Amino acid sequence: MKVKEISEFELIRLLSKTLSDNYKASEINTIYNEVVGLADDAAAWDAPEGRQVFTTDALVNNVHFDLRFMSSIDLGWKSMVASQSDIAAMGFKPLFTTVSLGLTGEENLNMLTDLYKGIADAASQFGGKVVGGNTTKSDTLFISISMLGHDPSNESRTNPLKRHSAKPGDVVAVTGSLGSSAGGLRILQDKTGTLPRCQDLIGSHIRPRPQIDAGVWLARHGIQCATDISDGLLADLGHICESSKVGADIKINTLPVTSDLKSVFPADWEELSLTGGEDYQLVFTGTKQSINEAISSIDTPISIIGEITDDYPGINVLNSEGMSGRYTSSGFDHFKNK
Amino acid sequence: MKVKEISEFELIRLLSKTLSDNYKASEINTIYNEVVGLADDAAAWDAPEGRQVFTTDALVNNVHFDLRFMSSIDLGWKSMVASQSDIAAMGFKPLFTTVSLGLTGEENLNMLTDLYKGIADAASQFGGKVVGGNTTKSDTLFISISMLGHDPSNESRTNPLKRHSAKPGDVVAVTGSLGSSAGGLRILQDKTGTLPRCQDLIGSHIRPRPQIDAGVWLARHGIQCATDISDGLLADLGHICESSKVGADIKINTLPVTSDLKSVFPADWEELSLTGGEDYQLVFTGTKQSINEAISSIDTPISIIGEITDDYPGINVLNSEGMSGRYTSSGFDHFKNK
Repeated sequence: MKVKEISEFELIRLLSKTLSDNYKASEINTIYNEVVGLADDAAAWDAPEGRQVFTTDALVNNVHFDLRFMSSIDLGWKSMVASQSDIAAMGFKPLFTTVSLGLTGEENLNMLTDLYKGIADAASQFGGKVVGGNTTKSDTLFISISMLGHDPSNESRTNPLKRHSAKPGDVVAVTGSLGSSAGGLRILQDKTGTLPRCQDLIGSHIRPRPQIDAGVWLARHGIQCATDISDGLLADLGHICESSKVGADIKINTLPVTSDLKSVFPADWEELSLTGGEDYQLVFTGTKQSINEAISSIDTPISIIGEITDDYPGINVLNSEGMSGRYTSSGFDHFKNK
Repeated sequence: MKVKEISEFELIRLLSKTLSDNYKASEINTIYNEVVGLADDAAAWDAPEGRQVFTTDALVNNVHFDLRFMSSIDLGWKSMVASQSDIAAMGFKPLFTTVSLGLTGEENLNMLTDLYKGIADAASQFGGKVVGGNTTKSDTLFISISMLGHDPSNESRTNPLKRHSAKPGDVVAVTGSLGSSAGGLRILQDKTGTLPRCQDLIGSHIRPRPQIDAGVWLARHGIQCATDISDGLLADLGHICESSKVGADIKINTLPVTSDLKSVFPADWEELSLTGGEDYQLVFTGTKQSINEAISSIDTPISIIGEITDDYPGINVLNSEGMSGRYTSSGFDHFKNK
């Protein structure tokens, strides 16, 4: 059955039920007393005193996702992770979420309930219970997610991780590995059938995980500067450089890349790790000592990949022979190997 | 110049500047200490303890608005009012807002800065400072707004106004007048040129005002049930009846309708006042005594238009001769005069 065959009232009831059937309560639900839920003009709750963060993101069909290459349940998961990752990049935890859907009417109801299962799964796992939403007619399918986050430590006012606080001499580090999501997407899009269907790379693309615990730790242990890698390392580190009025040197041979990525993309893994989006890792800067403390304290692997310079606004990419390319906010200037 | 001719970074800087140039601070800004603003992964602030509400809405080009009939600045204003009205319908005040824009790339930058002027104007006037946003490519222009509200009285936990708390015997009342926005839209859409271009009706359509003061008063003076009229009186009162498992009798001759609406639409004013959307008035129910107290205490005119019955789930529309029509959540059953 399609969306256009039922009323908006029935649709909202179906989506609300999917959320409540699939959401598993977390610690948040004991701190924040919800007094009104999904079925009113707005959700309402009692909040304790504390620092909050608020972010929004939108995913548009055929721009940010393609349902030929991923299931609706994965799309729901990923839509949530994009916003959870923004909250993580501030050093906070996801709290409450609203979901605004633009629907053509041609969507199957099964597709939508799967989408909401994925949303509820990610909220159960990483926080950000859905408390409000909206459905509307649109020529293009879109999902707009807004998320409120909070400071899990009530006793202190944690300074959020910011983009504008990198300093020349800071070490640049990243969580996890880079380029895997972009590699997974290339495999899914491969029409030649020649690429090995590496499940770990595909998994990185369709089921990314926000680095919430890492972000929370960093904000409380002397790190001041971070952002999440949604558009690719160079673009997102570029935002840090632009905001902080600094430059950066990045060493290719220090980039954390899985052996899978290197073996499936022997010619392209460098480019994938520098420019591939949607890894949802964190890139952050700090003193060598504070970064080393992070490496030994955080469960997620952390790699030092370069340092902040005063060469505003360029990011120099270095290989074993020296300069390999230079990136500014307007894109790559060049790549020697191309 | 068009959106597609500048970078996303430049676009965001332009929109942020438009917001800060046009936003005038309110009392909220002294209670909530903002620590991170627009230019990061998320906005951050220190919130005092208290009840909060959270809502989202989306407006899509050619579905919810048509830029042939209204200016971009009015569109920005109206996009905000739709969410401010949801907060008002809970009895709360707008606090912070995120704006997610889907853009085709063909939009003129002037159109976008006008849109954000309208957004900043409405935030200055009724609350809901914009602290976050997102722009994305889309085949369809859309504006998705999420808004956080708060309880302006810190000393008590005000019960939000809900849809599901109407009781048989309650009196039904509305703020302001009905049908004016729909009348204004008909004038704007009039191709025959025969309708008088009544500026008050047009103004009701392009510059609606959320009933925040009325909502705040109602929630603190014994009213438990309210919603805002965005889809039309019968549809929105229908939501109350559906949620509360009640029915309602509405008397046409008590509907608050301006003399302008009657004179421009002598044959259609009844239908416009019953089904016209986007008036952003409040419809609420309560004991006769509490409604009378509201009438004598609230600045906005309030009209008693009928009562809640146990005739779930129908709304009977009565004229001087008795039954004129019956409405359920699936729409009108009939109208005698048609």
